[in-house]
Amino acid sequence: MPELRKNHITTGWNIIASERGKRPNDYRRQPDKKEESDCPFCEGHEQETPLEVFALRAEGSQPNKPGWRVRVVPNKFPALSLEGKAVLKQEGLFNWIPGVGRHEVVVDTPRHDGFINKLSDEELKDVLVTLKLRILDAQKDPGLKYVQIFKNYGPEAGASRIHPHTQLIALPVVPQTIRDELLTAYEYFQETEHCLFCDTIQQEKEKKLRIVSENDAFICFAPFSSRVPFELHILPVSHYANYEHTDEEELFSLAQILKSTITTLKKVLKDPPYNLLIHTAPHCAVAKIDPKVACNCYHWHIEILPVLTRIAGFELGTGMFINPTPPEIAAKYLRESNENSTI
Amino acid sequence: MPELRKNHITTGWNIIASERGKRPNDYRRQPDKKEESDCPFCEGHEQETPLEVFALRAEGSQPNKPGWRVRVVPNKFPALSLEGKAVLKQEGLFNWIPGVGRHEVVVDTPRHDGFINKLSDEELKDVLVTLKLRILDAQKDPGLKYVQIFKNYGPEAGASRIHPHTQLIALPVVPQTIRDELLTAYEYFQETEHCLFCDTIQQEKEKKLRIVSENDAFICFAPFSSRVPFELHILPVSHYANYEHTDEEELFSLAQILKSTITTLKKVLKDPPYNLLIHTAPHCAVAKIDPKVACNCYHWHIEILPVLTRIAGFELGTGMFINPTPPEIAAKYLRESNENSTI
Repeated sequence: MPELRKNHITTGWNIIASERGKRPNDYRRQPDKKEESDCPFCEGHEQETPLEVFALRAEGSQPNKPGWRVRVVPNKFPALSLEGKAVLKQEGLFNWIPGVGRHEVVVDTPRHDGFINKLSDEELKDVLVTLKLRILDAQKDPGLKYVQIFKNYGPEAGASRIHPHTQLIALPVVPQTIRDELLTAYEYFQETEHCLFCDTIQQEKEKKLRIVSENDAFICFAPFSSRVPFELHILPVSHYANYEHTDEEELFSLAQILKSTITTLKKVLKDPPYNLLIHTAPHCAVAKIDPKVACNCYHWHIEILPVLTRIAGFELGTGMFINPTPPEIAAKYLRESNENSTI
Repeated sequence: MPELRKNHITTGWNIIASERGKRPNDYRRQPDKKEESDCPFCEGHEQETPLEVFALRAEGSQPNKPGWRVRVVPNKFPALSLEGKAVLKQEGLFNWIPGVGRHEVVVDTPRHDGFINKLSDEELKDVLVTLKLRILDAQKDPGLKYVQIFKNYGPEAGASRIHPHTQLIALPVVPQTIRDELLTAYEYFQETEHCLFCDTIQQEKEKKLRIVSENDAFICFAPFSSRVPFELHILPVSHYANYEHTDEEELFSLAQILKSTITTLKKVLKDPPYNLLIHTAPHCAVAKIDPKVACNCYHWHIEILPVLTRIAGFELGTGMFINPTPPEIAAKYLRESNENSTI
């Protein structure tokens, strides 16, 4: 059974995925594997994955058979277990929780090379709708406190398969990063009755230094304190705390700006590996903050982090990043290459 | 001029090293470079580095000439600038500080292949003494608030040169990781009048599950909530807040346990890349905590993180790590291979 263990000094949680149980020899370094010809995520290979838990598929088509547009299966090597009860345990200074949760793989498309830049806006919207529905489904389980959606693109970004896919991990705790963001936003809201993220958008719109693109519903900019070169954030322009409450029309606008952003990154940085993640408001109380209050002060967003530099001793020791490209410069390069830029 | 920019949402700092000013083409991926035959860190090549700021060298030998045992030079591509004044600046929601500080390279040995496992205890002690003296020197500058020492070993761990070296970055802020550790230790001390780290050592000694080795002055164990497989911490057994206050006799004991730890990691994991870092108490007030109080509640330590897994979207989104090898299993493998283990 995996465990969530609390670091009693930094107060953060880590997952000890003991079922993966890797021994020293399992870490022998090998060159990054070439994709096997027999990809289990391709249409027609549905029998090679665990049974699907959800799919958008053609009317009349059968589960675990061809005919799907987006398909969701449990991760074959899950970091968390579906079984068990997430009860806090303690021994002396140490606290842990049995590693109960969900770890799902969302196969974005039946096509092996259907990367974001090659999907139609409608196809990408289907992926975004699926993510929304899987978050809502995980929230039905009262033991699960937060759902982290992420995409690793390219082996240097941690992707073990080429076939386009996104991952979902539903956790029995609220992660430290979300807790910290929410606490700051809460304090700001107490002081100003404003959303910190809405005010950030306003300031970026006035300066126009770091904005890459905008459409009717979304804005994409390089954040002021970017951790990595060409880091980008995409936020809804109107105030929304939860990704999963976004309607289909807005998800279509999101598909448009996301596709244009990834296409521009590919062009400017020659197809860089990247990590993409969604931050949404927790659907349970965090510290003293009720989810209803969180709705006022949090604002969901996407973060995209190209993998161009390495996280090494300095970053691990301090939590600080050294970024050799100022976000103003990054935004300028991206704007100049982005056909949809209006700045 | 580089800048330290505050992330106004997570409250952490990042360094925008604008003088490195990397443009998109500078990040084109290349295979890791083979070491050039002409290594500027080797004895006899002293003219190829910036002028040395410190060295342990044979009596009568000249600065920037052969005859040294450990040599310290400014980093050729520093993340921070020696010139300027670290004054907080603000515009709307954003805060930043001119990137004033030190970025030094400690060349561990004149020998190109003098890795930790190949140094004598006395040679490694010389490196540890040098690190201590450089921290004390940086502390003379009242604008510098924290000194982060780190070593990146192997290209996958971020090392750009093979020749054994350690780095020092002296910062005009206390990094978020140190602040968080200190705040937790402070609260624990207020409650119990005990050092959180001393109590951790006590608990590990009672359980004996995660200890790898011990000597007269130090203990090495795999921490309960290890972020990465085979993560190891080395702590002085007696209570010390500051690495730089450790005396020469203790640094000799540290050299012994450090050499044995790295040698064992090399054996068990086939020469893994790793990051090593030193956490010491800040020499300035943090939040409400005076440095004199910090002396009671903080406890310096070394963290060693082998690079066997990747930091990807989940880790960047949550701050949580997924570790496939429980620390109890890691410690067992290392103990069985460690000739000096007494457990």
